[in-house]
Amino acid sequence: MAAGDIALADRPRLTTASVIGTGLVGTSVALALTRHGVKVHLQDADPVAARTAAALGAGTTVAPPGPVDIAVLAVPPAFVAPVLARAQAMGAARFYTDVASVKRLPHEAMTALGCDLSTFIGGHPMAGLERNGPCSAQAGLFAGRPWILTPTSTTSRGAEETVRRLIGLCDAVPVVMPAEDHDRAMALISHTPHLLSALLAAALERPDGSAVKLAGQGVRDMVRIAGGDARLWSDILSANAGPVTDVLTEIAADLERAISILRSLDGAREAAEADRATEALVDLLERGRRGHQSLPGKHGAPAQSYTELHVLIGDEAGSLARLLTQVHAAGVNVEDMSLDHALDRERGVVRLQVSPVAGAVLPGVLEEFGWEVDRTGGEERG
Amino acid sequence: MAAGDIALADRPRLTTASVIGTGLVGTSVALALTRHGVKVHLQDADPVAARTAAALGAGTTVAPPGPVDIAVLAVPPAFVAPVLARAQAMGAARFYTDVASVKRLPHEAMTALGCDLSTFIGGHPMAGLERNGPCSAQAGLFAGRPWILTPTSTTSRGAEETVRRLIGLCDAVPVVMPAEDHDRAMALISHTPHLLSALLAAALERPDGSAVKLAGQGVRDMVRIAGGDARLWSDILSANAGPVTDVLTEIAADLERAISILRSLDGAREAAEADRATEALVDLLERGRRGHQSLPGKHGAPAQSYTELHVLIGDEAGSLARLLTQVHAAGVNVEDMSLDHALDRERGVVRLQVSPVAGAVLPGVLEEFGWEVDRTGGEERG
Repeated sequence: MAAGDIALADRPRLTTASVIGTGLVGTSVALALTRHGVKVHLQDADPVAARTAAALGAGTTVAPPGPVDIAVLAVPPAFVAPVLARAQAMGAARFYTDVASVKRLPHEAMTALGCDLSTFIGGHPMAGLERNGPCSAQAGLFAGRPWILTPTSTTSRGAEETVRRLIGLCDAVPVVMPAEDHDRAMALISHTPHLLSALLAAALERPDGSAVKLAGQGVRDMVRIAGGDARLWSDILSANAGPVTDVLTEIAADLERAISILRSLDGAREAAEADRATEALVDLLERGRRGHQSLPGKHGAPAQSYTELHVLIGDEAGSLARLLTQVHAAGVNVEDMSLDHALDRERGVVRLQVSPVAGAVLPGVLEEFGWEVDRTGGEERG
Repeated sequence: MAAGDIALADRPRLTTASVIGTGLVGTSVALALTRHGVKVHLQDADPVAARTAAALGAGTTVAPPGPVDIAVLAVPPAFVAPVLARAQAMGAARFYTDVASVKRLPHEAMTALGCDLSTFIGGHPMAGLERNGPCSAQAGLFAGRPWILTPTSTTSRGAEETVRRLIGLCDAVPVVMPAEDHDRAMALISHTPHLLSALLAAALERPDGSAVKLAGQGVRDMVRIAGGDARLWSDILSANAGPVTDVLTEIAADLERAISILRSLDGAREAAEADRATEALVDLLERGRRGHQSLPGKHGAPAQSYTELHVLIGDEAGSLARLLTQVHAAGVNVEDMSLDHALDRERGVVRLQVSPVAGAVLPGVLEEFGWEVDRTGGEERG
């Protein structure tokens, strides 16, 4: 159909847009588009919100004279389908997208409402939701962040190309996946974490508030997202109830296991019983460590340069293990390691990349314990 | 007894110390004491760890010639009592303290081992444990952080005064509380958060690792502490099993409730049923928001200056509520508010403290909606 066609130019046309829903995400999209010269028309069920977005320079509250190139539906998941149906009935735009953090249920609702699914493509910019409303909006909110697209077999090329252009203007990174995969991924990395954060935060509220005065960064980081808007998050969790329930059920089983282990440790009168419980607890915590390490990128440590140390090792059994045990005892985190065997095959060189602090103290300590360290091999690596 | 006496000088003597256990916390204490001229003797079950701490400038591995002023036992909870018993049997120090994050169980073990409880006072510096080992130690690790002391009726003044001096040299803030209160507080704000972080992180480890690639800051912050040493945390959780189980049991009940709500939302065929479930979910999330807000200090927002706006309101019913609803719709977070009635009692002035961005756009928007805003009243406040 006509709406699905795209011009033969390299870039799909994107000179006019409507943003329907001028909260944090909608206003941020509008600011980014306006900054790139797109004429943006702002609408919100609450006229104060739309006027505020306009006052921030995100566009105009004047209705567009005709269909815009794209309408961005920045409304809660449950409203996406009805708002799309109404906008399409009015012929508001050539193409449509949304920004909801749930994709399958709104899509089913669109089908039920008889929406034209060729002109729509589901989208989800992955950006923080701890603050709400247009006054927290920023044109750069999506810069460098993934922006998930969930095209279906009925999605027109024009819809996808136009939204890709919009994502480009927001400096975000398009990631295509099926709606079901998106919803399961979000259940795991966003919706379940939010609910757990809320459950932990709820436990912190006590009549005697003395404990929370001692709260350090660890618990603060864990309950930070619990500060988000309760009704918005209730909408999100409801719209993705199935996948979230699946993840929560797994975690609930592990939690019951942890409680049972701790109960047996609390009551253990036999060393063997306590040892078994301790090992089960360590296993659980180790699974957590592995999950933590499965997140891409460096964890915790800021980017820094490393020092490379060369340690000579003989070929006696276990010498590499002994070296690494001692390096571990020194509290040195080995960032990277390689093992080179020398020509005579009887001695090898272990190359260790360590922090500059460890690079300064480790050679002397290892030499005290009989290792031969090639200090000239040490070099700074970015 | 003599060991409990203190000199008549203002400051208790602290010129020599032993640090037993040169991990992150022990080495950091040693660095802080050394920096203040205290002669620090370092010991560790692993000689590499002690030598590394010495190489970092934290003190000497040479044994002290006689009893030191204070011995700091920086060992896991289960080792505090036996290490204290041995050190006291050797007459290693005038006074003793520990740094374990659990206090009741080690104290019971000391009593069982017949330790001299007059020369010991339990201590717990509240500092991060995500990294381990001497190479991550810093003299400033405790600066400005609470350092909990758990004296009992048998603790001598000399022990408490000497440890208070040590805390002062570490730039930390002493906080006195009973061991039981400490353990319950830590279960709530440290041990339970750690376990939940591990459970969430464990759920992230999937054969198909595509979801975690999309992980944003929210889930990253939640699993950060799960990266801690599994065996150390197993020791801590085991030693505080009772209080941790109490908090976990509460959270498990809320988790089961959340799962049951989400299941009924997933299957709801009647609007009334869905509405009831939604309200229950909003209640749960609101409890989380309140718990989040019960943490002292500002949340999320960096320190900033505020702009004060003065809005005139009439005395018609609901005008203040209408104003605040519109301010909320504009996405403006009101940092502080006060209401002054003018002399004639028919009109009042609402003073709103808002962010500079909101201060710039809100007056114009409110005027469009019929409010009278005193722009001259706007002033920057630090």
